Amino acid sequence: MMAGSEKATSSGLATSTERTRVVILGAGPAGLLLSHLLHRAGVESVVVEARDREYVQARVRAGVVEHGTADILREAGVGDRLDREGLPHGGIELRFDGEGHRIPMSDLTGRHITVYGQQKVVHDLTEQRLADGGDVRFACGPARIHDVDTAEPSVTYTLDGEEHRVVADFVVGCDGAHGSGRTAMGPAMSALEKEYPFAWLGILAHASPRVDELVYASHERGFALYSMRSTEMTRLYLQVPSSDRLEDWPDDRIWEELSVRFSLGGEPWSPTRGEIFERSLAPLHSFVAEPMQRGRLFLAGDAAHIVPPTGAKGMNLAIRDVALLAPAMAKQLTDGDESDLRTYSERALQDVWRAEYFSWWMTTMLHRFEGTAFDRRVQTAQLRSVVSSRAHSTALAEAYVG
Amino acid sequence: MMAGSEKATSSGLATSTERTRVVILGAGPAGLLLSHLLHRAGVESVVVEARDREYVQARVRAGVVEHGTADILREAGVGDRLDREGLPHGGIELRFDGEGHRIPMSDLTGRHITVYGQQKVVHDLTEQRLADGGDVRFACGPARIHDVDTAEPSVTYTLDGEEHRVVADFVVGCDGAHGSGRTAMGPAMSALEKEYPFAWLGILAHASPRVDELVYASHERGFALYSMRSTEMTRLYLQVPSSDRLEDWPDDRIWEELSVRFSLGGEPWSPTRGEIFERSLAPLHSFVAEPMQRGRLFLAGDAAHIVPPTGAKGMNLAIRDVALLAPAMAKQLTDGDESDLRTYSERALQDVWRAEYFSWWMTTMLHRFEGTAFDRRVQTAQLRSVVSSRAHSTALAEAYVG
Repeated sequence: MMAGSEKATSSGLATSTERTRVVILGAGPAGLLLSHLLHRAGVESVVVEARDREYVQARVRAGVVEHGTADILREAGVGDRLDREGLPHGGIELRFDGEGHRIPMSDLTGRHITVYGQQKVVHDLTEQRLADGGDVRFACGPARIHDVDTAEPSVTYTLDGEEHRVVADFVVGCDGAHGSGRTAMGPAMSALEKEYPFAWLGILAHASPRVDELVYASHERGFALYSMRSTEMTRLYLQVPSSDRLEDWPDDRIWEELSVRFSLGGEPWSPTRGEIFERSLAPLHSFVAEPMQRGRLFLAGDAAHIVPPTGAKGMNLAIRDVALLAPAMAKQLTDGDESDLRTYSERALQDVWRAEYFSWWMTTMLHRFEGTAFDRRVQTAQLRSVVSSRAHSTALAEAYVG
Repeated sequence: MMAGSEKATSSGLATSTERTRVVILGAGPAGLLLSHLLHRAGVESVVVEARDREYVQARVRAGVVEHGTADILREAGVGDRLDREGLPHGGIELRFDGEGHRIPMSDLTGRHITVYGQQKVVHDLTEQRLADGGDVRFACGPARIHDVDTAEPSVTYTLDGEEHRVVADFVVGCDGAHGSGRTAMGPAMSALEKEYPFAWLGILAHASPRVDELVYASHERGFALYSMRSTEMTRLYLQVPSSDRLEDWPDDRIWEELSVRFSLGGEPWSPTRGEIFERSLAPLHSFVAEPMQRGRLFLAGDAAHIVPPTGAKGMNLAIRDVALLAPAMAKQLTDGDESDLRTYSERALQDVWRAEYFSWWMTTMLHRFEGTAFDRRVQTAQLRSVVSSRAHSTALAEAYVG
């Protein structure tokens, strides 16, 4: 796999230098799929991941796979388990004013989403990469990116007291919002951002789902989201003030609040209770890097953009980025034709802004803001329009199902 | 027409007291149509208008008649000239990023709007009322409303030094945002409001239309709206800062700014120029009175609610209010059945909030706000979604065409 290897001592550390075509930072869905797609196009790559394999594969993140995302995974030959174990959902429910309204997404669009945890996607891709002899390096610690404005960019990381340097034609940052990829963009990148004045308290519970489809509840006390992850696991969210801490939310308070916000017909509606085995607090915000390229460095996934989770777009966007980037990069590396690579950022950003808009729409329509009574009436009128107009339902369904 | 007439001197003024079934304040579209519909149901009314007839009929206001509004006018027997002289429009254009995108409303919804000035609707209704022997009193000056919480509410106004009192079963305020109707609601009414941080500079010009259909332009310098009123008259609007005065906008500056904001493909696009014979500055705001009833007093039209003009809903909502109120009031007065009248406010407010939502949507999607670069990208992404998704176009068209 390695084009070359040598020792140097200039840094004081023992240093090994290798060569490959593409160094990919991050072994999440974007990085692994990119490595896999490049491999299928005959291009070698090295994936450098800061954390160990167990940590990466246990990370519970997104759970909604769009129709188009499932197609990409299938076409890449890594959709078997998704098709076997994923739970196809043909609709979602919008609940407000004590009434539930199903948006029949499959009827409206002929497409569906699949509930399949991100950690499973990561697991499938890791297995595939290793089966194909791919070079995925876990537990590398923080990486540094060098010389992206030259023809010989590289990445260094330190492992067991030895500094490793991988020189490549391209470096791709798939290492998330806090990774080296975004940092290495420097002033070449504009950061476009939006903060929402609240957070999501999320829990995972060992509890059988009460209903199958996702329920998005807009209640005067705030937003709540019900989802199942499997027949034994539910994932639930509550909108909470940004200043809240996990200690403010003992189990009983969480379950009580959920049952109030999911009320139907004036009666509390409780998800099935079960042991809460994970809980988290996450502020809601949006971020877009423009452009998604600096010289020989490219960004994909969370490294380039963050969406609030309301639209369930995060992992899907990451996979779409890579589905654009991989063939463009392979074309450059195999044919010397860089036309597609040059337009990668522009093309990816079109999808990114569509997703940012949709996520903003869902977030502002469903959450409780510190607004006036006028604003709240307009919010409810918008929800009424979405559930009562087939065209408006379809517009939402199309964007949701992807 | 008058059930009774007498003289009294208690107020110091000579006073005549009359009786009728319904006193209607305001001879705009709402008041005149209400009087007409009550007449057709066999209920007498008196319309009291502060201004003289010439002023009322010359007031240029809205110009877009929704499909459903045209149906109401036709069914009421006052749609002949509308059908003869009104200009049916099957689409509107959304223009942004230098590109025009037609929303083919008729293709999408099977319905259309009709461009027909509000002053023509007022003229048609006045003619009809007078032909039917209706009691429409112009130039009455400000009216006062009394005793709406009793069974004998009344209205007084002063004409030629004499105080006139009209006692009725019901008083209806169709006298606009600054009329006596809204004031007389007192604490029974909650005011729900929203101010937008800009105004519209509107002009009427003797100029043949360059194109037929309305053009809504969202430009980085602000919103602009192109519309025709007839084959010799155009109506044009510019978003301007709330602090601007008419003196800030000499004719040349107006035409220059319009041609920039309507740019197509990087080139200025100028509406046909002509003599500007009317100009106005109006802040954009929304207002809703909840409820639209206090005892024996009812509100309809602008007295009860204001929408920003972006959605072209003002006159249409006024006519819809009255189409609900007239049969409900007639039922109470002829059969003693007050069931429909009791739910008037609630039913009318459903339409009102739908229109407030749509007007807010159009306004926020198309105007330039003091937002971040992120907000502007999301705004453009929303416009792209509306023009590229048939479902999203249809949702907008349905709401627009009414």
